[in-house]
Amino acid sequence: MKLKLKFKKIAICASQKNNQIDEIAKQCCEVLKSLDVIVYVNDNLSSVVNSTKSKVVNDKTLKQADLMVVIGGDGSILGFARRFGSLGIPLLGINLGNLGFLADIAPENLTSILTDIAYGKFKKDKRFFLEASINSEKRPYIALNEIVIHSGKVAQLIEYEVFIDEVFVYRQRADGLIINSPTGSTAYSLSGGGPIIHPDVKAITLLPMFPHSLSTSPLLVKDTSNIEIVMIGSKNKATLSMDSHNSLSLKKGDSILIQKTSYDLTLIHPRDHNFFSACRNKLGWSSAIT
Amino acid sequence: MKLKLKFKKIAICASQKNNQIDEIAKQCCEVLKSLDVIVYVNDNLSSVVNSTKSKVVNDKTLKQADLMVVIGGDGSILGFARRFGSLGIPLLGINLGNLGFLADIAPENLTSILTDIAYGKFKKDKRFFLEASINSEKRPYIALNEIVIHSGKVAQLIEYEVFIDEVFVYRQRADGLIINSPTGSTAYSLSGGGPIIHPDVKAITLLPMFPHSLSTSPLLVKDTSNIEIVMIGSKNKATLSMDSHNSLSLKKGDSILIQKTSYDLTLIHPRDHNFFSACRNKLGWSSAIT
Amino acid sequence: MKLKLKFKKIAICASQKNNQIDEIAKQCCEVLKSLDVIVYVNDNLSSVVNSTKSKVVNDKTLKQADLMVVIGGDGSILGFARRFGSLGIPLLGINLGNLGFLADIAPENLTSILTDIAYGKFKKDKRFFLEASINSEKRPYIALNEIVIHSGKVAQLIEYEVFIDEVFVYRQRADGLIINSPTGSTAYSLSGGGPIIHPDVKAITLLPMFPHSLSTSPLLVKDTSNIEIVMIGSKNKATLSMDSHNSLSLKKGDSILIQKTSYDLTLIHPRDHNFFSACRNKLGWSSAIT
Amino acid sequence: MKLKLKFKKIAICASQKNNQIDEIAKQCCEVLKSLDVIVYVNDNLSSVVNSTKSKVVNDKTLKQADLMVVIGGDGSILGFARRFGSLGIPLLGINLGNLGFLADIAPENLTSILTDIAYGKFKKDKRFFLEASINSEKRPYIALNEIVIHSGKVAQLIEYEVFIDEVFVYRQRADGLIINSPTGSTAYSLSGGGPIIHPDVKAITLLPMFPHSLSTSPLLVKDTSNIEIVMIGSKNKATLSMDSHNSLSLKKGDSILIQKTSYDLTLIHPRDHNFFSACRNKLGWSSAIT
Repeated sequence: MKLKLKFKKIAICASQKNNQIDEIAKQCCEVLKSLDVIVYVNDNLSSVVNSTKSKVVNDKTLKQADLMVVIGGDGSILGFARRFGSLGIPLLGINLGNLGFLADIAPENLTSILTDIAYGKFKKDKRFFLEASINSEKRPYIALNEIVIHSGKVAQLIEYEVFIDEVFVYRQRADGLIINSPTGSTAYSLSGGGPIIHPDVKAITLLPMFPHSLSTSPLLVKDTSNIEIVMIGSKNKATLSMDSHNSLSLKKGDSILIQKTSYDLTLIHPRDHNFFSACRNKLGWSSAIT
Repeated sequence: MKLKLKFKKIAICASQKNNQIDEIAKQCCEVLKSLDVIVYVNDNLSSVVNSTKSKVVNDKTLKQADLMVVIGGDGSILGFARRFGSLGIPLLGINLGNLGFLADIAPENLTSILTDIAYGKFKKDKRFFLEASINSEKRPYIALNEIVIHSGKVAQLIEYEVFIDEVFVYRQRADGLIINSPTGSTAYSLSGGGPIIHPDVKAITLLPMFPHSLSTSPLLVKDTSNIEIVMIGSKNKATLSMDSHNSLSLKKGDSILIQKTSYDLTLIHPRDHNFFSACRNKLGWSSAIT
Repeated sequence: MKLKLKFKKIAICASQKNNQIDEIAKQCCEVLKSLDVIVYVNDNLSSVVNSTKSKVVNDKTLKQADLMVVIGGDGSILGFARRFGSLGIPLLGINLGNLGFLADIAPENLTSILTDIAYGKFKKDKRFFLEASINSEKRPYIALNEIVIHSGKVAQLIEYEVFIDEVFVYRQRADGLIINSPTGSTAYSLSGGGPIIHPDVKAITLLPMFPHSLSTSPLLVKDTSNIEIVMIGSKNKATLSMDSHNSLSLKKGDSILIQKTSYDLTLIHPRDHNFFSACRNKLGWSSAIT
Repeated sequence: MKLKLKFKKIAICASQKNNQIDEIAKQCCEVLKSLDVIVYVNDNLSSVVNSTKSKVVNDKTLKQADLMVVIGGDGSILGFARRFGSLGIPLLGINLGNLGFLADIAPENLTSILTDIAYGKFKKDKRFFLEASINSEKRPYIALNEIVIHSGKVAQLIEYEVFIDEVFVYRQRADGLIINSPTGSTAYSLSGGGPIIHPDVKAITLLPMFPHSLSTSPLLVKDTSNIEIVMIGSKNKATLSMDSHNSLSLKKGDSILIQKTSYDLTLIHPRDHNFFSACRNKLGWSSAIT
């Protein structure tokens, strides 16, 4: 029986240019070409085009891919996830040597893993994005890991009130506030003392940064909550950042509405992937097993 | 139009005897009698029987109540929740002056609130229990707040391995391990650095106590997880406790399986109840609202 | 026996202008004038001059005061401490209603306390400053509370190596690093999880901010340590701030040497002052005593 | 020039018997015998006597040693430190393969290091003990790492008041309270969130365990403080333990006075020993240095 391709058009992408990435991209192209997959690459991979007969395409064409393979670290995946994953294109991350939480495929095992995945042997892993809209504006900003509201300066307090589903939660003064998804729980939130949250838990974390209060525990609410943050007047300005990427100015009285998106990101993993093994690798958990 | 009683048989219970409790119990009885509710009281309230024409009944009859009103603190509710709430009887908690997370009705407002509730004006709040069974034994133990596995002595390490849905998580040496429900997140877990979890979040927290490891973050997994803890050989004994209530001995090689129960506890709250207001009261959150 | 004045020239200062401050300043002037103290006021208090026959003087004259009374919060004291306290002028802080750690005199008790202090009934409390010099430059910057090295942006890592008395301690990636005195232990450091340190403990705290590492405990070294921080190359810029006041740019390779100053700040307190009572007031410690 | 022996009588001790320890002990004996040192061994090392012509001596004779070499982990050192180090005998710790904070000499380098040390090439490192006396009884108990007052059971609160130099600090309800020296800061205190304190810092840490309060920061006071803890009435019993070693019952009203001892422990280290290198090894600090 002939195996059937699960993905016909696969895009290979990277957020930067270097030799190591080119090598991996070339290998990806060769494997996929040999399976008769149509292969697109993004402009950072232009130097692999000749040898692999793949073609550099623009964003519009990338959006037609059935799968996007991203070569890079977790940070690279974040960017492609927001731009392409948010449109429904599944993502697969190949790391550059250091296992990531999102970029979980080591370059060594590329050929067999890519082949398996192309033929449908994989695990799907759904993640939600967080979207923020300021003062009910139409076009929301999205983040996969976390949204941070911050004074923009160290040791400068901002003040805000938090409402969950229109119920008042607290008024707080702090350097800032992190609102993160389970996906973000192993990123910035973790270094601020937030809990590690398995991707299947449907929750959003609120974690104050250097709060000027006695009670500093992180707060978890369910993923479908409407989280509203109202900026209270203060001399300090505040900024809103999405995955530490863009940075928007906030002013007194601004209301930021944060929700999970109606659509998900689909991550593609090898069948033997599991979250806890990534945790043990990345977080130094003792892994002894007798 | 005549209002219809939502609960026909209501049990009033307390886990101890004292005058303050008797006063409140008496008031409850009077209100409910005037509404033609059948009122049971448990043996700790025997002294209010005469004046109120209610009757002291045994556990078997208490189990036939449509609603159980518990007078006491959160600790009292825990006990009645395990014994009666686990059978499907809804619980309502009247506190003795200090607002609790579970005992959230102040004695002052008793008459109007009880009347409202008897006529169906209330909010339902579902909570799950955690159940633990040791080495696959049939009859599991249950806890509403948390299960603690502990060496039983301060600064004595136990060692264990944790598996979630049969996947290895970590091996750890610590004084103990707390496994708590969202309900327990504002109890013992909180003083150990665990996050505050809204009751609607479907998650279970694993929180090591004084772990002998660098990574000490709490871990949250979804509520339907099978959590297995295997005791690794050590000179120190370990004990298992449910809501700090009973205490069972564990030995090397024991496997403890922890899951949420298939049934829920139903808490009855006044219509204007909300979790965050209890947090502000109990946890010193700043509550200013302009 | 006639009581002898302990301070002949006393300066009254404030870092801002408002009616409440003027009221308190006026009262200070009147009390001190009646004791035949020579009273200076700084320019923010010009409006009290007429009624009190005190005079506004410039910084040069302020520096000749035997005692400086600062009206304001802890933040105001910090500024006068760096500018005048560092020259040997003792400081006394009058708060505007909220007890501070440094501004510990309530306006209500002003007359009797000021009189006592003028006649020598007080407690002296010595605090050291931290001084930082970048690349061995001559004129160091000073801070009473803390020095912060920070990327200047949220969730942007800087990388640095720390040496204590020329011995390598660690290399770290973090949003920033707080180096604080015991005086600063109840300020910014506290909201970042640092310990509370009694002013008599001769120690300096190093506290990483959102470190990208597993080990995040604060580190305490003795007060006479030479603390050297070397900025490791990174794409992110870093800034150095002293008491959140001035902000200096750091670049790759910069070496920051931090030491306690050879001179102390002298704080003047009423005789019954104690540090723990300020902690109970400010930090919500339970204060019940039978 | 002939080198002069710095220690004439050296005791080799272990707190348990096993082959690895015997091997190391034998090597120690041989090195020291070859230098004409008089060598004592304790009873756990009886099996090395024949081959090394050393002799097993009782505690009384051990107390006449000029130096005690302890083979074992940090836990073994604690015991010999309390029994012999407290009498002024310097201690040197040889670990069994895992570097310790106190047992810092690896067996591999034994010959050269022991020879150097015998001839006076070493670093002295002074550490204070903590002593506790209950209700002013004469014979105090001592600990090198920490004193723990605890309910003896998990999730059982005790209540106590703390006074420093007779000044009230706070009243607290918690599972327990850790009072530790800088030496203990890298032991039990660390897993409870206490700061790491360089041995030269003259401070004592108070760290509540699972406190029932909002303010949970560790508190550091200077090493010469008189720390008094008064047990407040409660249904729960409490116990006092010294280095997790002995365990004494406490009852309502008991007053525990904790102070540093008037004498020190002297640890002997190789000349190149430093505290931070032990921290990097044990605590997973990143140690990269360019």
